[in-house]
Formats: sequence, structure tokens, C-alpha cells
Amino acid sequence: MITSDPGTSLDSMTHTVVKKTSLTLLGLGAMGTALARAWLAAGHPLTVWNRTPARAAALADAGARVADSAADAVAANGLVVLCLLDDASLDQALAGADLTGKDLVNLTTCTPAEARARAAWAEGRGARYLDGGIMAVPPMIGRPQAGGYVFYSGPRAVFEEHRHTLGVPAGTTYVGEDTGFAALHDVALLSAMYGMFAGAAHAFALIREEDIDPTVFAPLLADWLVAMAPSVHLTAAQLSGGDYTKGVVSRLAMQVAGVPTFLRTAEQQGVDPQLIAPYFALMRRRLAEGGEDEDLTGVVDLLRR
Amino acid sequence: MITSDPGTSLDSMTHTVVKKTSLTLLGLGAMGTALARAWLAAGHPLTVWNRTPARAAALADAGARVADSAADAVAANGLVVLCLLDDASLDQALAGADLTGKDLVNLTTCTPAEARARAAWAEGRGARYLDGGIMAVPPMIGRPQAGGYVFYSGPRAVFEEHRHTLGVPAGTTYVGEDTGFAALHDVALLSAMYGMFAGAAHAFALIREEDIDPTVFAPLLADWLVAMAPSVHLTAAQLSGGDYTKGVVSRLAMQVAGVPTFLRTAEQQGVDPQLIAPYFALMRRRLAEGGEDEDLTGVVDLLRR
Ligand SMILES: NC(=O)c1ccc[n+]([C@@H]2O[C@H](COP(=O)([O-])OP(=O)(O)OC[C@H]3O[C@@H](n4cnc5c(N)ncnc54)[C@H](OP(=O)(O)O)[C@@H]3O)[C@@H](O)[C@H]2O)c1
Ligand SMILES: NC(=O)c1ccc[n+]([C@@H]2O[C@H](COP(=O)([O-])OP(=O)(O)OC[C@H]3O[C@@H](n4cnc5c(N)ncnc54)[C@H](OP(=O)(O)O)[C@@H]3O)[C@@H](O)[C@H]2O)c1
Repeated sequence: MITSDPGTSLDSMTHTVVKKTSLTLLGLGAMGTALARAWLAAGHPLTVWNRTPARAAALADAGARVADSAADAVAANGLVVLCLLDDASLDQALAGADLTGKDLVNLTTCTPAEARARAAWAEGRGARYLDGGIMAVPPMIGRPQAGGYVFYSGPRAVFEEHRHTLGVPAGTTYVGEDTGFAALHDVALLSAMYGMFAGAAHAFALIREEDIDPTVFAPLLADWLVAMAPSVHLTAAQLSGGDYTKGVVSRLAMQVAGVPTFLRTAEQQGVDPQLIAPYFALMRRRLAEGGEDEDLTGVVDLLRR
Repeated sequence: MITSDPGTSLDSMTHTVVKKTSLTLLGLGAMGTALARAWLAAGHPLTVWNRTPARAAALADAGARVADSAADAVAANGLVVLCLLDDASLDQALAGADLTGKDLVNLTTCTPAEARARAAWAEGRGARYLDGGIMAVPPMIGRPQAGGYVFYSGPRAVFEEHRHTLGVPAGTTYVGEDTGFAALHDVALLSAMYGMFAGAAHAFALIREEDIDPTVFAPLLADWLVAMAPSVHLTAAQLSGGDYTKGVVSRLAMQVAGVPTFLRTAEQQGVDPQLIAPYFALMRRRLAEGGEDEDLTGVVDLLRR
């Protein structure tokens, strides 16, 4: 896209000059600052506010209008993006602001329940509300090729209206009208990632005291995780279809037979198995409950309280 | 490679007719049978033995010579591949066999300590010993494009001598003279994989009771895991260099700040957090011990007993 002047651009699809949506951003932490720079770089008129004013100074140099208060910042535009620390900080920041007629897009990480409550709260104050969950770190913002994106949920009409503007800092993935779904997807993917990191930490601990270069081991580990990640498609198909024995690649009975080798190796290498043992225990429980011809999907059911 | 007749082939590199190495395989379970079929398909003269003779019948039709006893099978060839259930089954299977002058290649899953002990045992009986760890499931055997491979460790000369033959069923990755290293790599990668599966199970449990199609969710999950797997390179570089604050992408302090959101979401969704909570506890412990400017590498140290 060619930027002809700040605030307007030659739209690459229609070849007509379109005005860039002006917007407000509250919160200039590591993530908020990255978002602000992306919108400014793309020529969007941007009003910013941060509780600690010093953090806004560099953005003023980059073309942002710095508001004196959150209320002033909110008043400046119809589209208001929030990127604060947590849900509680929103109450404090927005205490004195008039939200009537505003479109709030909340990129602050929160739980699905908090997002739903926040939507009700916003609607009660006359605003429309869209929730977002950022699947990126600040260096990925404004670099579409880096693969970062943001989950959005809430009224589809609000998303469609702002889709183009919201797509400037990172890709957008709309996951449904239920306001809690962006947060739920966000938390689910990050939780799974920490599980993977836990497994990787255990693997590194196993080789730690041996004459094995971690940087030679890492590509083998990364390739293996990448190769095995698509296993989640089998889990999904089985959860969806209800038959956990359909399409099985490795029988649970066979996999459980390998568990003693994994635990013995940890013991012999002097590694506390606490990060992987709970999963093995659930595999064994599912096997004991009759899952021998299944793969691993049954473990999901054992996690429901 | 063009197979001109069983046991010989027109070598694609040298364009000379080369004789295919003849070998023995003990163990015709799911994996052993797949290995046997791959060697037969590539024209290697193959002698097989299985404790339960019935499993060998189909392979005889495919061209294998079926031995009456393990001792006979071992006597038939200089190269003897083992693919039995576990380490203990080797003692039983090989009790009456003369191993003098044999090259044993043991693909039976075992711990590093078992592999090292087995190497000493084999050498004591006049054999050379190579250990292997199979990173594949049976459907991937004989299909190089499927990406399966086998870790090998032990005397490099033995590996090099049989490299070509061993490479027929799946790719080969030699990881060192220490006989335990194939098993260690095998167990480390599989343990990490189960950690990833544990995280994925938690993620599926989170969305389970919501109006979210698991098969729509799965590609998002798989893509995210694939995108995040290369994080292990940072861990490796930090373990190798010793400075856990170098090249940090996300500060531990920031990541720990997100933990309550993950745990609260699990609680609100009715999901037992047992598969991810231990990792979060170690993140917090490392933070409490002064790791705020690190990323996640410090967790590895906390796993060492
Ligand atoms: N950084 C990442 O990698 C990342 C990735 C995905 C999602 N996120 C999410 O993005 C959001 C912001 O993260 P960040 O990295 O920018 O965090 P950060 O650098 O710690 O910044 C926190 C921001 O929140 C403001 N704040 C905190 N408490 C406040 C209060 N009571 N009232 C008003 N403002 C308050 C801070 O203002 P002061 O400057 O006055 O302290 C600052 O602007 C978080 O929800 C985070 O989970 C971050
Ligand atoms: N299948 C996989 O996905 C996979 C993947 C990677 C590695 N592996 C490893 O490959 C090895 C074989 O696995 P598999 O899938 O082929 O297992 P399997 O189908 O259960 O077969 C086990 C084999 O071991 C034999 N056996 C068991 N106990 C014995 C004993 N005491 N004496 C002699 N033979 C005995 C069995 O003979 P009978 O027929 O007489 O019972 C059979 O041939 C295992 O170490 C496994 O961990 C398997």
C-alpha cells in the first residue's frame, strides 16, 4: 500500500484516495507503544494517553496527539482501543470517561468471563464493545510477515466496520459473536504453548549434564515438535465425532507401555519428572478405564471437573 | 534407485550393480513387521524370527527367510537388528544365541543406562553394538517422504559400515559414540512431545463445553504450536552461553503476570489445571529467585535434582 500523506493513502484495491480512520489508544506499555507506532506508520491519525505521561513523549515526536486525560483521549475519536495491564486497570483508567456512542476495542489480556462482563459494562455506558486477544509479542507488531495476529470476538458488525484499521498492526482472526471467545482462544493457545515449553524444558534437563550441545539438540527438538503438532487434528476429529478409537495412530496401550522408560530415564538423568508425570498419570487412568484402543483424546475428558 | 533383482540393485550414484546386504531381524510386532517389509521391498535378503511364529507367515510370502529359533536367525547373518518389546525381552530372546562376530543393532526402546549396559553385555559376548531409537510410527516406515527417522549411537565405524542398509526403512541420525545417546535423544524428544500434547489437551478441555468446533480450533492451535516451537533455539543458546538474560523476547516478570489469567480461565471453564500448573509454579519460583529479566530458560535448572 502506498501512503500518499499522513491520514490518507492510495488504496491498493480501488486506486482511490481513502481517508485513514482516526482512533484513540489508551495504554503505552511495551505492546501499546508498538501498536501506536504501527498505526502512525500507516498514516492513521492517533490520539494516545498513558497513565505515566513520560511514555507518550516519544510518540508525540512520531506524530501522535497526546491527550491530557483518558477522558479527553476517549472524547477525541469514535474508535477507542485499550491496551492496559489487566482488567482492573480499565476501571481506573476509564472512571471519568464518557463512553456514549464509542466503539471500544479491548486488547488487554483478560479471561473470557471478564471480557463478557466488560462488554455488559460497556453497553451499559452506551458503547459497543469488541474484545481482542493478541497472539504476538511487540517486535511482531507492524510486521505482517512475522505472523502475529489478534483474535477478535463480539458483534460482527463492529468488527467488520473496523477490520481494516484493526488489521494494521497485525493480522485479525474473528472467532465469534460471544465476546468471551477471543480471550478463550488466546488463553487456550498460550496454555498449550506453555505445555509445549514444559515438555521442552524437561527435554533440555535430560541432556543438560551430558556431552550434548544444546544448540545441536534444539533443531532436532524443534523439528520433532513441528512434525508432531498436527496430531491435534486427530484429537479434534475424535472430540467432534465422539469415537475416540477412530483413526488411531498409536494405541494408548502401546503408548502407556513406554511410560516407564520415560520415567526411568528422568530418574537416571537426575531430572524431576513433575512437568510430564501428570500427563502420564492421566494416560494410565484412561487406559485403566478401558481406553486401550484409543489414542490420547480421552485425556481431554479427564480434565473436566 | 532401480532394483534389478532381489538382493542387488543398480546403485544410483555409481551405476554399478551392488549386492544388497543381507541381514537378520528379531521381532515382528507392529514396528518389526514394518521394518521387515521395507528391507524386503528394497531387495535385502532378510532372515526373520518372532517368538510367536504366526506373525512371520505373511513375511515369508513377501520373501523373508523364517528361522526356527532366534539362535538360527542370528547365525544366518553378520548384521542382526533387534526390535522387541523392551530391554528385558532381549535377554529372553538371545539367551541361546552365539553373538561372536555379530553386529547387533538394537532398535528396541530403552533408557540410556539400559543401552549402555546392553552394549557392555554384547561386547562381553564378542559382538559389536549399535543402539537405535525410532522416531516414527509404523506407517512412516519405508516412506522417506513421511519424515520418520532413527537415532543411532555407538561406534561410528559400525554405523558407517551399515549406514546404507539402516537407511532403508527410515532416515538415520547419528548422535554420538556414547551408546546411550540414541535412547536419550529418543526419550527427550518424546517427553517434550507429551508435554506439547498435555498443553493441547488442556486447550481442548478449555473450549470443550463452548460452542466452538474443535476441528476449526485445531488448525489455529497447530499453527500456533508450530510458530512457537522455534523458541527452543533461544533456550538452547542461553543454556549454551550461560546468560539467561541474553536475547530475551518476553521477560519472565511479564509472563508470570499473565499466569493468574490462565489459571482463572481454567477455573471458570471447569478445567483441572494439573497439566499446566506445575510449569507455572516453576516460572514463579524462578521469578522469586531473581529471574525477572530472563525468559523461561531458568526453569530447566529447577528440574535438576
Ligand atoms: N508484551 C507482550 O508480549 C504482550 C503480548 C500479548 C498481549 N499482551 C497484553 O497487552 C497488554 C499490555 O501489555 P504490555 O506488554 O504493554 O504491558 P506493560 O508494558 O506492563 O504496560 C502496561 C500498561 O498498562 C498501564 N497501566 C497499568 N495499570 C494501570 C492503571 N491502573 N491505570 C491505567 N493504566 C495502567 C501502564 O501504564 P503506566 O505506564 O502508567 O504504568 C502501561 O501503559 C497486557 O494485557 C498484556 O497481557 C502483551
Ligand atoms: N509401534 C510404534 O509406534 C513404535 C514407535 C517407536 C518405537 N517403537 C519401539 O519398537 C519396539 C517394538 O514395538 P512394536 O510396536 O513392534 O511392539 P509390539 O507390536 O507390541 O511387538 C512386540 C514384539 O516384541 C516381541 N516380544 C515381546 N516380549 C518378548 C520376549 N520376552 N521374547 C521375545 N520376543 C518378545 C513380540 O513377540 P510376540 O509376537 O511373540 O508377542 C513382538 O514381536 C518397542 O521397543 C517400541 O517401543 C515402536
